[in-house]
Amino acid sequence: MARRTISHEGGAIYEFTPDLEAIETVESGTELTIETRDSLDGAVQFDDDVIENVPDEVNAATGPIAVDDAEPGDVLAVQIEAIRLAEDRGRVVTIDEFGLLDGFDEIEAPRTRTTPVVDGDEPLEDAESAIRFGDLEVPVDPVIGTIGVAPAGDSYTTLVPHDHGGNLDTTDVTAGNTVYFPVFQDGAMLAMGDCKAAMADGEMCGTGAEIATEIDVTLEVIDDPATAIERPLIETADAWKTVASAQTLEEACQLANFDLIELLSAAHGFDPTEAYMFSSLVGGLEISQVVDPLVTARNAIPKTYLSTPF
Amino acid sequence: MARRTISHEGGAIYEFTPDLEAIETVESGTELTIETRDSLDGAVQFDDDVIENVPDEVNAATGPIAVDDAEPGDVLAVQIEAIRLAEDRGRVVTIDEFGLLDGFDEIEAPRTRTTPVVDGDEPLEDAESAIRFGDLEVPVDPVIGTIGVAPAGDSYTTLVPHDHGGNLDTTDVTAGNTVYFPVFQDGAMLAMGDCKAAMADGEMCGTGAEIATEIDVTLEVIDDPATAIERPLIETADAWKTVASAQTLEEACQLANFDLIELLSAAHGFDPTEAYMFSSLVGGLEISQVVDPLVTARNAIPKTYLSTPF
Repeated sequence: MARRTISHEGGAIYEFTPDLEAIETVESGTELTIETRDSLDGAVQFDDDVIENVPDEVNAATGPIAVDDAEPGDVLAVQIEAIRLAEDRGRVVTIDEFGLLDGFDEIEAPRTRTTPVVDGDEPLEDAESAIRFGDLEVPVDPVIGTIGVAPAGDSYTTLVPHDHGGNLDTTDVTAGNTVYFPVFQDGAMLAMGDCKAAMADGEMCGTGAEIATEIDVTLEVIDDPATAIERPLIETADAWKTVASAQTLEEACQLANFDLIELLSAAHGFDPTEAYMFSSLVGGLEISQVVDPLVTARNAIPKTYLSTPF
Repeated sequence: MARRTISHEGGAIYEFTPDLEAIETVESGTELTIETRDSLDGAVQFDDDVIENVPDEVNAATGPIAVDDAEPGDVLAVQIEAIRLAEDRGRVVTIDEFGLLDGFDEIEAPRTRTTPVVDGDEPLEDAESAIRFGDLEVPVDPVIGTIGVAPAGDSYTTLVPHDHGGNLDTTDVTAGNTVYFPVFQDGAMLAMGDCKAAMADGEMCGTGAEIATEIDVTLEVIDDPATAIERPLIETADAWKTVASAQTLEEACQLANFDLIELLSAAHGFDPTEAYMFSSLVGGLEISQVVDPLVTARNAIPKTYLSTPF
């Protein structure tokens, strides 16, 4: 079956609400190519295009895509097969009152640095291409910044991460990995955008190298999952990672750790305290981002110790 | 020259103060084997040995060791060559009013799980030995929890991490890596202990698998360093990592990011804002521990982008 393309011109959202209306409906198992705009909707093309304030509408998420038969209590698996850059440059920006070092005298905002995509004569190891930042090259390693489903009750703009996903800004949301979302509403209502050509864990200045992309995914509904999840869960080649967003990193770490404890308890018959102790020995806490209105952390466990919870 | 052994019976401290008195004095370049007790001084040998409260004296740090000619403004490089387990079991504990999930109804404290060291018939990949937690085995991957030098002004018990090091509980403080400390006092006054047979990033329950060890290190004084450092810095096989401790993870991340920005600026001629932007593209923020009286984060940058700052 040919891969079906979802164009960003077909529709995009700036808010995840419980009552989203789908721009497309697909069956479980469908392979899609999803086009995404850059997070700033093309407003920045050159170094003198600066962003004075965080726009009211930012991180356009292409969709929503309804998946047939997805119902509350199910899990939606989004297998990310590829993320291709769709333009010749990314952009890194600072914005006033945004970013980890907002308020530090040494940091200037607003400021823009565009990052041209280059195919180097001597390509960096494992990178098909790189972006250029001044004289330096950084391997292209794309990340989907905003990805989520219709939430249970409250609404969240695409600037905010929460239990439905949203602006997770998590480097593990990348090609080769699968992201599992709790389904809160009929059809799940998946949307994604806000990709980066490269991003550091933390996304400290408030952006990675923001860029338009085409994303290949396969969507699967897991009906009646063996384990219910309340928040996104990521499967990488060698680990499972719980993902949680909260007001502070400490709270996000608590949620991510607690979610992992539940998975470890179910897998090994541990009581919560034993699982907590075990979680202190291998894998561990990781930082996704420290800049969005809620911050995001994850707790990784090697697959050696956890097979699929579904 | 034979490697010189520093016995924990020769002396250990429970507080890093500005006016420490050395138990040994060595020349720069000396190779040492340092014996360390477990963080709980042997109080826990079996699962029914529980720790009701954090002891007043915990994390005995063998030392202090004075290094000839180390003076304020210098840097002390501690190259960690090997960490050998010196007893047949570690121990993981929960303690009331301690740990990431302190106060969660599901978590029981105090509780102890000893973790026997086993040489499995089918050893885990890359592990010479493992520790057993229930039916599971975890590769031995030792970490030095507490390591530091005499601080500049204030004193810190060995439960607390700060700019002098101390209870950093950082998985990168391990064999193969080098930790660089600012020298605040004549002789630097290095001490270390509180090792773990294995530990997750975060050390969520408040401990790893606490165990006595023998540590092989080489100490070098870097006289008149090209770059001054204010806090510990770690060199791994492929990255440099700034390390910072503060009241909250957000503050620790700010300090670690700011320290990295200074290193990137010096290396590449970036202004601070450019370095901040660049730091948002590669490497990133990592969590060391979220349980000690101050918490610890680090900011990694691949060596591709930073050669030695000294």
